[in-house]
Amino acid sequence: MARNSTRRRKKLAPNAVVQRPWRLVKNPYKPIEVLSADQIEHIHRASLDVIETLGVDMWCAEALDILEQAGADVDHTNRHVRIDRALIEEAVAKAPAEVTLTPRNPERAVILGGNNICFAQVGGPGFSTDMDRGRRAGSFTDACNLMRLSHSLQVIHITGSGPVASNDVAVPIRHLETMRANLTLTDKVAFGSAFGAARVNDAIDMTCIVRGIDRAGLAKSPGVIGNINCNSPLRYDGPMTEGIIEFARASQPIIVTPFTLAGAMAPITLAGALTQQNAEALIGIALSQLVNPGAPVIYGGFTSNVDMKSGAPAFGTPEYAKATLASGQLVRRYGIPYRSSNVNASNTVDAQAAYESQMSIWATVMGHCNLMLHGVGWLEGGLTASFEKMIIDAEMLQMMCAFLEPLEVNDATLGIEAMADVGPGGHFFGTAHTLERYENAFYAPMVSDWRNFETWEEHGSLSATQRANGIWKQMLADYEQPAMDQAIAEELDAFVAKRSEEGGVPI
Amino acid sequence: MARNSTRRRKKLAPNAVVQRPWRLVKNPYKPIEVLSADQIEHIHRASLDVIETLGVDMWCAEALDILEQAGADVDHTNRHVRIDRALIEEAVAKAPAEVTLTPRNPERAVILGGNNICFAQVGGPGFSTDMDRGRRAGSFTDACNLMRLSHSLQVIHITGSGPVASNDVAVPIRHLETMRANLTLTDKVAFGSAFGAARVNDAIDMTCIVRGIDRAGLAKSPGVIGNINCNSPLRYDGPMTEGIIEFARASQPIIVTPFTLAGAMAPITLAGALTQQNAEALIGIALSQLVNPGAPVIYGGFTSNVDMKSGAPAFGTPEYAKATLASGQLVRRYGIPYRSSNVNASNTVDAQAAYESQMSIWATVMGHCNLMLHGVGWLEGGLTASFEKMIIDAEMLQMMCAFLEPLEVNDATLGIEAMADVGPGGHFFGTAHTLERYENAFYAPMVSDWRNFETWEEHGSLSATQRANGIWKQMLADYEQPAMDQAIAEELDAFVAKRSEEGGVPI
Repeated sequence: MARNSTRRRKKLAPNAVVQRPWRLVKNPYKPIEVLSADQIEHIHRASLDVIETLGVDMWCAEALDILEQAGADVDHTNRHVRIDRALIEEAVAKAPAEVTLTPRNPERAVILGGNNICFAQVGGPGFSTDMDRGRRAGSFTDACNLMRLSHSLQVIHITGSGPVASNDVAVPIRHLETMRANLTLTDKVAFGSAFGAARVNDAIDMTCIVRGIDRAGLAKSPGVIGNINCNSPLRYDGPMTEGIIEFARASQPIIVTPFTLAGAMAPITLAGALTQQNAEALIGIALSQLVNPGAPVIYGGFTSNVDMKSGAPAFGTPEYAKATLASGQLVRRYGIPYRSSNVNASNTVDAQAAYESQMSIWATVMGHCNLMLHGVGWLEGGLTASFEKMIIDAEMLQMMCAFLEPLEVNDATLGIEAMADVGPGGHFFGTAHTLERYENAFYAPMVSDWRNFETWEEHGSLSATQRANGIWKQMLADYEQPAMDQAIAEELDAFVAKRSEEGGVPI
Repeated sequence: MARNSTRRRKKLAPNAVVQRPWRLVKNPYKPIEVLSADQIEHIHRASLDVIETLGVDMWCAEALDILEQAGADVDHTNRHVRIDRALIEEAVAKAPAEVTLTPRNPERAVILGGNNICFAQVGGPGFSTDMDRGRRAGSFTDACNLMRLSHSLQVIHITGSGPVASNDVAVPIRHLETMRANLTLTDKVAFGSAFGAARVNDAIDMTCIVRGIDRAGLAKSPGVIGNINCNSPLRYDGPMTEGIIEFARASQPIIVTPFTLAGAMAPITLAGALTQQNAEALIGIALSQLVNPGAPVIYGGFTSNVDMKSGAPAFGTPEYAKATLASGQLVRRYGIPYRSSNVNASNTVDAQAAYESQMSIWATVMGHCNLMLHGVGWLEGGLTASFEKMIIDAEMLQMMCAFLEPLEVNDATLGIEAMADVGPGGHFFGTAHTLERYENAFYAPMVSDWRNFETWEEHGSLSATQRANGIWKQMLADYEQPAMDQAIAEELDAFVAKRSEEGGVPI
């Protein structure tokens, strides 16, 4: 059960941020279903039609060879492939329902699959922002600070190796520097770059080093995860396809995520966008199983819509919520883990950022997603990583975790004796029933301010975003780097030095 | 289907606020259940035990007589009653599953019950606030402006006769002035005061006048609704009990809402607070049915928790979400309409206000609530009505309405032909499939700004709350009072004049 947050706080520095403790999270409630079983089958069959009759471009000779050898209809000149539905279904059926990911600190191992839900940090933005310095191009310093926050935020299970782009680090070695930072600044499961075979293999080698095991050992106990986006519509480029192949080969989980914005890269209808998403995802998932049957692989759903007036992508919309829940239904049909995201399109950490994120979070959680990517820190349609949003999101995720803790019904919790003690018109503050439970009875917030208006005003009338600004600074001030064995740290440095001398991954 | 918002906008003034059209809303999805059927029965039985063995205070001689006559065990000296479970269950079973409420504009009639969901404006705050003038004691002018917004916001089905207290109107006639304002400034269903028999009867008489029918006609076609809060724990005061009796007598729906803040006015355990809520609610509901079997009555759930550090009430918490969903399960057991609320405890319209409201909205909607009270405008634990929050909430409710529109799956929406037309790497902007649908394909926001960062910055970097400030001002500027027959208006004025001359309802 929960460690007592009030009691914990007493042990901490006076300003230390109060959080819920690290914990694996399960969703005990039935998922929300927005489609009937028949409608799911309809989309499933239509997506197999797309795979059979339209097929996809795949700009990777090795992948085309693998698919051809398995019986697919490959056009090498146009780098295009059509695949029989039986082949797809047979391959997808080999993917495991669940994978455990173990980082260098085995106490931070996580399970992807079933009714487990893991929260990961934002990945991919080019810009970072905070209330003091405003919006700027991402830097290695900002990336490291975001990783430190990801380490310190107990609700986060998986950190992002690129929470913001390290634009001040040369591209050929950027993945090496960010992966080293991630593996040293945090002890949680880390994302590795899935962009091309060389980067994937660097991420795998570096993970082996910090785990103190070889590739065979890592295959038995996976420890790194990657994400690829299909170049929707119906195209897999070279580096992303290599990402699937190399992750699968090493038995590390790869997330296959079509980028299906309805109206732009997918049909304007959600049913159409989901059909295309499903077709694209099943091809990538099938490829992983043809490379290495039984290798862990994750279905990524990212169907949203564009604003038809401007063409701008919109996130956290009603359409996003429906697509996220429908995707969960599709993924459960295939019995593999499901990834979705906490997204919004706001340009600042305001009410819009919060309500769009909440639309995403509820749909993601109640769609029984197993891995919520961009769980904390995403702003501005993913262009920017926000320090304040890291904290606001962590609060929202903590609240969701508390919501997922089952309501206990038994004679003691029914409290009839307490009601008899208190009697009509009384209050329960001082009863034994209350005193026995008050420390852990309710969710204790990190950001939310429940003081009355006058007290809140006396303390500066701070908005939630301003309070979040104070919290991330306090958290960085309190940050302690997790210890690493000296020999391992040296081996990791030597690896990065060697690979950097070799030129890293040339552009 | 939806009227085309883009097309509508063309007909409106250039600055007019774009909204979704007025519409009745149904929830096609299954409710989220946080308790098993056994747990619901456990709470049900425990609440009957409370009613039988502990009973409630009831400070109303007429109610005690009615209950005694029906077979309850009444202690007149202590104004206390214990009721046999069979009597309670038999009475509650007579309450109807559904009620249609018709205002003076019959096109704005609403249905409470089944899988319908109606949204009502905030009611009850003593303060009002906006970004320009800040927080102040509520006034009649503010109340009227909030009613005008409630009329103009198409997502609102039911307006609040007291969206903020008219502190500048004498208490004996305040209910008359606010009810007249509500019935003239809006043409939607209005709340009437349920505080004591005299106020209820004024609300009913005034509703009859604007409907042009007598009490017998109103009994056949209800048109006014009231809410009472039980003085938890286990006490009904005089005016509130009279509210139940008089609404029931006139066959108008009364909402019976225990005020069960876990840890303060109810046991600290959610199971205990829900047991007490259920006991208190069932007594009020049973009373209404003993007064007038088959009279419409609504079960109000309002179980939240207090902050155990400060004793301050907390809203939009994980506990609130669980209690709201569990209450829905309880209410469905009794087959009557369910009222819940959109609540938060923030002192300002910030990210906290939005995420706490979203926790409430998702739980309320997915708990199959039929009437969301405080749907727009509630701030600061209900102490304050906020003009900006009116707009932010309306946006969130509109989004939820769009979420509740079923996802269409058929050969046309699957879009395989469009995918074939576009081909790998293309885009869908110009396809026939897109052009046929782009105007209505996606939710068009009122507040959310999806422009890119640079454009947003050029236009002043406005937060969602700042944009909401501009929207409510525009909406008030565009407000048109709904026409009322001159004779009816005069009759209404004459009624208010007569009742005011009589002294209204003396304190």
